[in-house]
Amino acid sequence: MTDIKIAIIGGTGPQGKGLALRFALQGVAVVLGSREAGRAQEIADELNSQLDLCTGMNGFSQITGMDNDAAVNAASEVVILAVPYSGHDATLAAISPLLTNKILVDIVVPLAQGNPKAVDMPKEGSATEAAQALLGDDICVVGALHNVSAHTLNAIEKPINCDILVCGNDLAAKKKVIELIKLLGVEAYNVGPAYSARCVEAITPMLIRLNISKAVPFSHAGIKIWSPTNADK
Amino acid sequence: MTDIKIAIIGGTGPQGKGLALRFALQGVAVVLGSREAGRAQEIADELNSQLDLCTGMNGFSQITGMDNDAAVNAASEVVILAVPYSGHDATLAAISPLLTNKILVDIVVPLAQGNPKAVDMPKEGSATEAAQALLGDDICVVGALHNVSAHTLNAIEKPINCDILVCGNDLAAKKKVIELIKLLGVEAYNVGPAYSARCVEAITPMLIRLNISKAVPFSHAGIKIWSPTNADK
Repeated sequence: MTDIKIAIIGGTGPQGKGLALRFALQGVAVVLGSREAGRAQEIADELNSQLDLCTGMNGFSQITGMDNDAAVNAASEVVILAVPYSGHDATLAAISPLLTNKILVDIVVPLAQGNPKAVDMPKEGSATEAAQALLGDDICVVGALHNVSAHTLNAIEKPINCDILVCGNDLAAKKKVIELIKLLGVEAYNVGPAYSARCVEAITPMLIRLNISKAVPFSHAGIKIWSPTNADK
Repeated sequence: MTDIKIAIIGGTGPQGKGLALRFALQGVAVVLGSREAGRAQEIADELNSQLDLCTGMNGFSQITGMDNDAAVNAASEVVILAVPYSGHDATLAAISPLLTNKILVDIVVPLAQGNPKAVDMPKEGSATEAAQALLGDDICVVGALHNVSAHTLNAIEKPINCDILVCGNDLAAKKKVIELIKLLGVEAYNVGPAYSARCVEAITPMLIRLNISKAVPFSHAGIKIWSPTNADK
């Protein structure tokens, strides 16, 4: 899969940067998209330098930066939407005409304004469903990567040991996204149609609540699927 | 906590039986409630015999059976509702007058009719919220134990290694329920108010989907909270 190039729209935020680092480390070319191309290229340079340092290689250049439109156009197929929820619909509407034959991976969680321990879901039920409604049925939307913290993604010296729940209405698109995510060394599971995002997105504020809680002795929580026949791996 | 006695309404079903076995093994007295007292006592006798066999002790008699009303009255504080969703509201309405000063633990998942891979949430948003609305604010409702399979609960020769998510509007009630659940040797986490049940209950059909899926090599899945600072325990 070394010929693939993914775009991360809103890629200059903490979630986007972490994903860019992780994918680049696996040999996947990444284009960061931002409203300002200069800003995107600046962050891309920073991340490439970080990868040089981390890998001991010189001239790591898997990551480039462009404005959002150019980033979408540069993507071979998968475009990851990683903007804050406040920019979710407007960003999608802007890039929508460019998404033909692409897969939109929506990782956005509609956290409530001023209360990251709750969601404030759009009328469609979830951000993923809102994206699918906005883009129309011809463009496949896949919800994924909602429950892995930016901290975990950016701590590239450690493996990601939480699982990724993937949902969406198109099975082929989900399979491609699951295959892509598994490159990061994590388990990724198909948990159903786009409406499963009502649950998947809402897991994030519960994790944030646990991270904040003094009653719980950990932070940067994620989730794992456990099974007695899965040997607690 | 050996002076506590819990009631399990709908305790003759697979989830209720598993919980009865697990709590009884920890020295907690359990009263199974059923519409028919005779049926409840019959199941209680079976479970006590199973515990005799399993523990090598004779005369294990932690579990008794009664009709639902008597079971609620016999409970020291905690009443677990473990009926199928189709009986959720009617059962609650029937026992409602007896629940003063008790804590109602709602473990019911509103699975869609004919499709256990989806939920069909009541208008209140979740079964837990529906229970709280039905019982009124004077009775504390706590949602818990939705995501642990009956198989796992009944496999008493093995520890339960998944986590339990607990939600509800009353913190003191949640703390009591978390303490009770932790007797079973599991982690139990406060994941917020009753509205968190919209997410917690909806996790179950996603797990059922994974259990059914041929793409996933396991069954009886549950979930775990994972954290990089939690050492993957």
